[in-house]
Amino acid sequence: MQFKVVVIGGVAAGLKAACKTVRLCSEAEVTVIEKGEILSYAGCGLPYFISGVVKKREELFSTPIGVARDPQFFEAVKKVKVLNRTEALSIDRKAKTVLIRHLESGEERTVPYDKLVLATGADAIVPPVAGVDLGNVFTVKSVDDADRIRAVLDGGAVRKAVVVGGGLIGVEMAESLADCALHVSIVERLPRILPMLDPEMAMLVEKHLQMEGISVHTDTAVTALEGDQSVSAVVCDGLRLDADVVILAVGVRPAAGLAAEAGLEIGPFGGIGVDERMRTSDPHIFAAGDCVEVKNILTGQRSFVPLGSTANKQGRVAAINLTGGDESFPGVLGSTVVKVCDLSVARTGLSESEAQTAGFETVTCCVPGEDRAHYYPGSAGVILKLVADAKTGRLLGVQAVGAGDVSKRVDACVGVLTGSLTVDQVSKLDLCYAPPYSNALDVLITAANVLKNKMEGRLRGIGPTLVKEMLDRGDDFFFLDVRSPGEVGEAAIDGAVNIPLGKLRKVVDQVPRDKPVITFCAVSLRGYEASLILAAAGHDDVQVMEGGVAAWPFAVTKSS
Amino acid sequence: MQFKVVVIGGVAAGLKAACKTVRLCSEAEVTVIEKGEILSYAGCGLPYFISGVVKKREELFSTPIGVARDPQFFEAVKKVKVLNRTEALSIDRKAKTVLIRHLESGEERTVPYDKLVLATGADAIVPPVAGVDLGNVFTVKSVDDADRIRAVLDGGAVRKAVVVGGGLIGVEMAESLADCALHVSIVERLPRILPMLDPEMAMLVEKHLQMEGISVHTDTAVTALEGDQSVSAVVCDGLRLDADVVILAVGVRPAAGLAAEAGLEIGPFGGIGVDERMRTSDPHIFAAGDCVEVKNILTGQRSFVPLGSTANKQGRVAAINLTGGDESFPGVLGSTVVKVCDLSVARTGLSESEAQTAGFETVTCCVPGEDRAHYYPGSAGVILKLVADAKTGRLLGVQAVGAGDVSKRVDACVGVLTGSLTVDQVSKLDLCYAPPYSNALDVLITAANVLKNKMEGRLRGIGPTLVKEMLDRGDDFFFLDVRSPGEVGEAAIDGAVNIPLGKLRKVVDQVPRDKPVITFCAVSLRGYEASLILAAAGHDDVQVMEGGVAAWPFAVTKSS
Repeated sequence: MQFKVVVIGGVAAGLKAACKTVRLCSEAEVTVIEKGEILSYAGCGLPYFISGVVKKREELFSTPIGVARDPQFFEAVKKVKVLNRTEALSIDRKAKTVLIRHLESGEERTVPYDKLVLATGADAIVPPVAGVDLGNVFTVKSVDDADRIRAVLDGGAVRKAVVVGGGLIGVEMAESLADCALHVSIVERLPRILPMLDPEMAMLVEKHLQMEGISVHTDTAVTALEGDQSVSAVVCDGLRLDADVVILAVGVRPAAGLAAEAGLEIGPFGGIGVDERMRTSDPHIFAAGDCVEVKNILTGQRSFVPLGSTANKQGRVAAINLTGGDESFPGVLGSTVVKVCDLSVARTGLSESEAQTAGFETVTCCVPGEDRAHYYPGSAGVILKLVADAKTGRLLGVQAVGAGDVSKRVDACVGVLTGSLTVDQVSKLDLCYAPPYSNALDVLITAANVLKNKMEGRLRGIGPTLVKEMLDRGDDFFFLDVRSPGEVGEAAIDGAVNIPLGKLRKVVDQVPRDKPVITFCAVSLRGYEASLILAAAGHDDVQVMEGGVAAWPFAVTKSS
Repeated sequence: MQFKVVVIGGVAAGLKAACKTVRLCSEAEVTVIEKGEILSYAGCGLPYFISGVVKKREELFSTPIGVARDPQFFEAVKKVKVLNRTEALSIDRKAKTVLIRHLESGEERTVPYDKLVLATGADAIVPPVAGVDLGNVFTVKSVDDADRIRAVLDGGAVRKAVVVGGGLIGVEMAESLADCALHVSIVERLPRILPMLDPEMAMLVEKHLQMEGISVHTDTAVTALEGDQSVSAVVCDGLRLDADVVILAVGVRPAAGLAAEAGLEIGPFGGIGVDERMRTSDPHIFAAGDCVEVKNILTGQRSFVPLGSTANKQGRVAAINLTGGDESFPGVLGSTVVKVCDLSVARTGLSESEAQTAGFETVTCCVPGEDRAHYYPGSAGVILKLVADAKTGRLLGVQAVGAGDVSKRVDACVGVLTGSLTVDQVSKLDLCYAPPYSNALDVLITAANVLKNKMEGRLRGIGPTLVKEMLDRGDDFFFLDVRSPGEVGEAAIDGAVNIPLGKLRKVVDQVPRDKPVITFCAVSLRGYEASLILAAAGHDDVQVMEGGVAAWPFAVTKSS
């Protein structure tokens, strides 16, 4: 007897579920319904195809050995029947059928299922402003979108691009367009880009984008797009940006319309509600990928975090369960990595603000370091921010920004968070060490030690944003830079007094005892030592500016 | 009242303990006794200085901003008094004094301590064969050693080098000398190099070394070094290798003589025995670094794993405890990473053989993959071997070899092992994903899924070494290569029959049902699919050759 499985959606989760179903159950007859032409494409690769880093569009939907993942491939190799250019119009849950229409012929028919998988993905959000229908205004969701953008860029007449939205896709597209020699501006409605980062980390990325020639306008809402046939300007509150091309990257929303019309439970974020087994409110219907809501492992709360990695895992879990197995998807940590020009930016777990919103009492630190031995060629900087639960000492999250290898440190924390380890345990992780790969004490270990010092009262830290506010207000404090004069010449922070650490013990009386002291250095390791020297000399109000000059997201002065 | 702390040893653990003690306790008077001239040098960087990758020797013992870590630096910046070129001769535990001698003046005196830290490190083992005192025969332990080797290389008269020992230092030195355009041979007494790897993984590294022009002679014991004043040949069982320079890299042993003479407990591996607080059998004496034995976290057994990363962590723990704090060092996982020409090689936890020795019933898999999206430039291969506990499903260890980023995957497992996670949990880790950093399903996730398939009986795997034995014996089985003809032309395994996966369903009757079948492809993902197709067609004895051609450590035939 045939076991009929219908999958709606043929990109990541859908085809994973389909192929895995056949592997698990040789009697299964699996049909995939996909609206688009192209199957199983790498949506996350679109910005790299647009920039030309990925040369051929076919690479985005071929196997590693170059075989196109088309209906013939799925039929011959995977025993999965794929109907592309075919839309699923409605689900009849009682009859257990799906009504489909072929987009070219217009032919409609119903296909029966024993089990149905919804993998309908997400749709790009188009902001409700005038002019979004003008020419050269694009979202970036499909290979078709990418083809259209490439065609405009190849036309050669475009000079200025505006990216609306400073999230992951926004910054990736900004980089891609800058790589194509366009002048690029990002417009972001919120106070900071990359909202999965805490503000001071996001500011480091903004600073880098600006250095790369990409303008970043935060706290700026778009009110209209202007132009004749084609877009010519983006109008914002108090700002007007010329634009030959506009990318709308304000986010995606789950494509859950079909599920909602079929009466399935929809969650608070508009995604299909599923249990850990990826089952919807109908036991014969599973859902996976960008169309569902996921549980955050640390908070237990539902969220909407569409990612290709999650989609593939969920597709597998759905297939195992619908073929009679027992498998669960535990949820996500909100792990993210993104390349921003020469920087890598990554995070997992909760940011400080997310942790506080979730009710945790937090303690954090911000620690810069090198990604490998400083004497090994290619060594590059990394800035880590750790967030921990002040009560239990458990690590709650990590954020990392740098030209160095940040994704390794963040991925190392994924197991840490999954296993509910403490900051103390992180400080003793037996991470691999050799000069080409890390320091003897990896920057993650050092960061955990710094956080322990804070938690145990040995170190009082203060963030750069607060220090900047104090400087701007003209607060009365002694701002002590303990770097060498050569380093200060390269990048000084206005308002600071320089006493190199090596001299501090001898001239410790030059530091006034009647006012607060804030110390720093390049990364604030020497700043920490300075605070201890001052404390030993009787100073009782000494704080260390976390992350030193490396993590200072404001302007510096070069005098040498 | 002064609190006198004496530290014997001024490289990694000793200076870490000394500086941390001062930071924790401003009353501490800390004296470091160091036999050598140079302090706090990066021993692990020596091979890279010898090869010229690190240009200046000073970089090995300077801070990241280029300040030499000499006695003046430690006095001025760290408030640590360092007596270098000074030997500790004996410890009087009753009087709590150390007898020291200045190596140049010969002056002897005693220094009193309240707490003593032994950080005497390890000594290079010189094998007990004739000729080790000849010229141009070196160990690689100190900056002096490196200087002498560099001087010989710079002399220009050396052409051929033999490295005795194929452990970490041995392979690093082999690469360094090959980088200097020498013809290099490695001689290893054991059946395989890199004994922290399982044999089939070590063979992949041997294959790479041979491809890079470095000869590897395993199962080969050195019986003598020959030469006039300078070495000219290495004589082994059945082999004689010309040599202008010989590196002895057969291992190190803990330098525990001083501790033993003072009557402190010495462990089974000859290292100083310490508890988790880094305290020796004398409560006033702590020890840290390469001179101590450490506990393996997974087996609970003592071992000797000298590493700069461990030394730094232990020095910190010793300092906290000797100043009245409470800190423990939980042990190690045996994490290691080493660069071998264009390969990276890393491991953590237990190898298959270690796990079996420790009494675990193991299940393993070997899975090749790419380190990032295959379409993203620079994507490179990685081969992972996972070892799990068959009873509990807990991950016990991972080994990784490849031109791609292996250290990230292994470091990701460090938190997994520390948190005692299962293979199932690994398969659902929310690792960071973006095309420049990983695949949607990271190779680690894929490997965990493969291992789950094995554990749940969906996949029967067989290792390449066993298959090779079957081929060599002429066993009667059907060896099925399901790659495309183009791939087979590039690298064929003799004895295999090629039926591309896409055709297999149609011609499944060509595969005989009366004998065992072993399938494979490039990485054995298609090999797995083929096994399922055959099983569905009624074949009941089908195995998949793990790791496919990517992990096949034997010769292949190129016909195209």
